[in-house]
Amino acid sequence: MTESVARAPLSSSAAAHTGRAAALARTLLDDIPMARAMDLSVAAYTGAVLTLAAPLAPNINDKGCAFGGSLNSLMTLAGWGLIKLAADERGIAGEIYVKDSTIRYLAPVWQDFSAIAQLAEGESFAKFFDALATRGKARLGVRCSVPLAEGGDAATLDARFVALLKR
Amino acid sequence: MTESVARAPLSSSAAAHTGRAAALARTLLDDIPMARAMDLSVAAYTGAVLTLAAPLAPNINDKGCAFGGSLNSLMTLAGWGLIKLAADERGIAGEIYVKDSTIRYLAPVWQDFSAIAQLAEGESFAKFFDALATRGKARLGVRCSVPLAEGGDAATLDARFVALLKR
Repeated sequence: MTESVARAPLSSSAAAHTGRAAALARTLLDDIPMARAMDLSVAAYTGAVLTLAAPLAPNINDKGCAFGGSLNSLMTLAGWGLIKLAADERGIAGEIYVKDSTIRYLAPVWQDFSAIAQLAEGESFAKFFDALATRGKARLGVRCSVPLAEGGDAATLDARFVALLKR
Repeated sequence: MTESVARAPLSSSAAAHTGRAAALARTLLDDIPMARAMDLSVAAYTGAVLTLAAPLAPNINDKGCAFGGSLNSLMTLAGWGLIKLAADERGIAGEIYVKDSTIRYLAPVWQDFSAIAQLAEGESFAKFFDALATRGKARLGVRCSVPLAEGGDAATLDARFVALLKR
């Protein structure tokens, strides 16, 4: 396989990722009033990592930095969206919901911010969708973070999601 | 002390609680755009328990039930407000912020909802404010829940808050 041929599916996959991520953003903004109030957007999607973004202004707290509830919401939606996009890519119709999560607030955020979601260590979409196909229900751990501009994290979220197969 | 005399301070304290809780609601709505977007209100305050409320409509998710981010925000603000009101009552000026929390989503919420905050087991305001006065910094665990109309909880939140004394 020549390099140019090898690149074609990658590039087409990247375009498909972008298209699906844009559709996800429309769904979130259309269906969840708080996502609109936060002025959420999709910043990037690679197939393995989903990054959502929000401006500071609508998301400030009484101290003028980012409201913890907004950090939590953006990270939780990033985790949910990561799994939703992976299901969409595989043509799997599932009901996905968050079961529990632990959030750590590490530093205040004084700027527009983003939330990055990826699978937790030891998790894989292959195992998850196999379990979903076999048992009609599966769990998946996701690790999310809000990076600081100067390095490190302002907040982290370890969340467990459940998916139920729609038959 | 006769019963009628004993009642007077209780009743005056209840009025003071109501006044402080109303001021807290104004602060949250004035300073936190997301609290306005959620249409948050103070439902009740006893000095030991703070209950915040929110209507379902602005807080729905893609499934039409309450958005997990709104449940988390309302519970976290109830916990924060509980400590803020206790500090206000004692004339203590402190910076209060949430350090970490674990949320469990137990059942969907299909109605207007409320979040109830009280101290976690083994915690006391006396110990907390003593530590704050002595060391200038103190931690406090708060237990919050969103009760279901039919009994039980739709969600629980165990949160740890930190207060820093303003000197």
